[in-house]
Amino acid sequence: MADLPQRNDISTIAKPYLIFLGDVSDPLDAKTGLGIRQWRPQWCAAQYRLPGCEVDLGLPELAPAAAAAAGAKSLVIGIAPDGGRLPPHWRGVVLDALDAGLDIVAGLHSRLNADAEFAERARLRGRRLVDVRNPPQDFSPGSGAKRSGKRLLTVGTDCAVGKKYTVLALEQALHARGIAADYRATGQTGVLIAERGVAIDAVISDFVSGAAEWLSPANDAAHWDLVEGQGSLFHPSYAAVTLGLIHGSQPDAMVLCHEAGRATIGNFPDYPIPAWKDAIATYEAAARLTNRAARVVGISINTASLPEAEARAVIAATASETGLPCIDPLRFGCDAIADVLERL
Amino acid sequence: MADLPQRNDISTIAKPYLIFLGDVSDPLDAKTGLGIRQWRPQWCAAQYRLPGCEVDLGLPELAPAAAAAAGAKSLVIGIAPDGGRLPPHWRGVVLDALDAGLDIVAGLHSRLNADAEFAERARLRGRRLVDVRNPPQDFSPGSGAKRSGKRLLTVGTDCAVGKKYTVLALEQALHARGIAADYRATGQTGVLIAERGVAIDAVISDFVSGAAEWLSPANDAAHWDLVEGQGSLFHPSYAAVTLGLIHGSQPDAMVLCHEAGRATIGNFPDYPIPAWKDAIATYEAAARLTNRAARVVGISINTASLPEAEARAVIAATASETGLPCIDPLRFGCDAIADVLERL
Repeated sequence: MADLPQRNDISTIAKPYLIFLGDVSDPLDAKTGLGIRQWRPQWCAAQYRLPGCEVDLGLPELAPAAAAAAGAKSLVIGIAPDGGRLPPHWRGVVLDALDAGLDIVAGLHSRLNADAEFAERARLRGRRLVDVRNPPQDFSPGSGAKRSGKRLLTVGTDCAVGKKYTVLALEQALHARGIAADYRATGQTGVLIAERGVAIDAVISDFVSGAAEWLSPANDAAHWDLVEGQGSLFHPSYAAVTLGLIHGSQPDAMVLCHEAGRATIGNFPDYPIPAWKDAIATYEAAARLTNRAARVVGISINTASLPEAEARAVIAATASETGLPCIDPLRFGCDAIADVLERL
Repeated sequence: MADLPQRNDISTIAKPYLIFLGDVSDPLDAKTGLGIRQWRPQWCAAQYRLPGCEVDLGLPELAPAAAAAAGAKSLVIGIAPDGGRLPPHWRGVVLDALDAGLDIVAGLHSRLNADAEFAERARLRGRRLVDVRNPPQDFSPGSGAKRSGKRLLTVGTDCAVGKKYTVLALEQALHARGIAADYRATGQTGVLIAERGVAIDAVISDFVSGAAEWLSPANDAAHWDLVEGQGSLFHPSYAAVTLGLIHGSQPDAMVLCHEAGRATIGNFPDYPIPAWKDAIATYEAAARLTNRAARVVGISINTASLPEAEARAVIAATASETGLPCIDPLRFGCDAIADVLERL
């Protein structure tokens, strides 16, 4: 859009990072900070938290000036608040970080560059404001046309169930087997990890499927694009984003992600998590509009809340119930699904 | 979004209109001009067409200066090009109209107010640039919470099959019966007709269901909101918009709209129009996420391409096949569906 502020070059964000965690208590709200810490630990120099914060990345605790003195180059806002707006009481931290000589990196809907006070302070201090959620270009509506190459998309019973971690782990597993594969980031955290991609939920709704087509362009026949899923078709707020991403990605294979023990959609106690067979049927029906061969090829369960024996039992029971390979990619690896992809 | 240009007050657009039709040959591309002509003929003073235009609204043919001299106050761009961008060879008409003293009204994704040349010329001439597709405010993600009042949403086998005309006709029919009902516009043409609403396809994808919730707020228990549908769950480009609108509207009743004789999605010959039972099942499954009582209560078929006897036969056959009341609202009225709504 001609009216958006500057497009930021995500690939040139200054490192290492001071990760700001605000005063959040729920780790699900800190998924940007946790994701960068998990997948790009070498970029993480320190963390900064406000009183009341209950999330801990296990990094040195430094305020902006001390972090800058210790070599940090950018303050990354590690929180993804619902609605994507910066809480007013965090503004001082952003201004302090600019004064300390740090660039600011955020994946919020409310853009740093559109904030007159932040923009003026950044100009004064000669710092960059990087809006990771700002789409990297204009898009067109989806074409629905078939592209060469193979595509996997993670889909979920809910938000925040492991869709990003699953594709990142699968990318490692396929690379270890010598299979060409690219992680395709679709959220602010993933874009920061991959240093490319598009925060698909910030795209104008008419262009969501078109943006997804752009994200995984035609490729070699044997190449896998591993597309990070977003939201859930069972989520009353975000299913539109999910559906456009499915239609544009045209996945050959989907991996259905879930968090063990979650019975209702997060923050929506009246919205139940669907049964496996219903979730699989719903995603396959949706995906077959643009790829008639689309199917769910495996299940990925985040079992972090369970002791190991219980986790293994849940995974075995799910594999038995669905007839599909079932993994917890971080805990037990993802070979069972990588095997399927290697054969497809 | 703080970075968008000015929010336009849609309710104060200067009338009457000179409707610009460009050089389009397909009436489906002229649906904004045709819709205003159909539903607000008292606002239409003249039309202006470029060589090659094959659409005719039956209005006096006047260039901008002559239209202004005859009393027209605004040039309305009556075309909705795919992707929503103004063709470069139409720019001269916009500038001529500003020079002639007309305001400019457009429902494009590419905003008039974001165009430096248009903005400067409008400032010089003291004219307004009205971007009807610019959402009227910021939105939040959908809450999924139940609201009082009753809601009907039109859904379609495809785009451009009569979803807007059906709700506008139903509004007239319910008002004639003394039933409180409001048309809720969700596209650029509807917003121009109603002088309120939101072009839902221009909303950031994360907020589509939230915008739909805003559009049809809590109301009297007996009141009907008649929400204009957008796109189609069977369309590879626009299904995301459709799904978010369904989830936010939480329809109690849906009317499935179709154009007689259309066998494939417009411009997508590889995408078949679904069978009635599949279309009904797909829409009901999608809508029941946020309203478990949602159901398709009738079928609306645009039979304009058929002679009357054939049209009546198609309607009777569809009613028989689906077990639902079936109408062509413009040709034969919509009493059969109004009867259902009166009883609901």
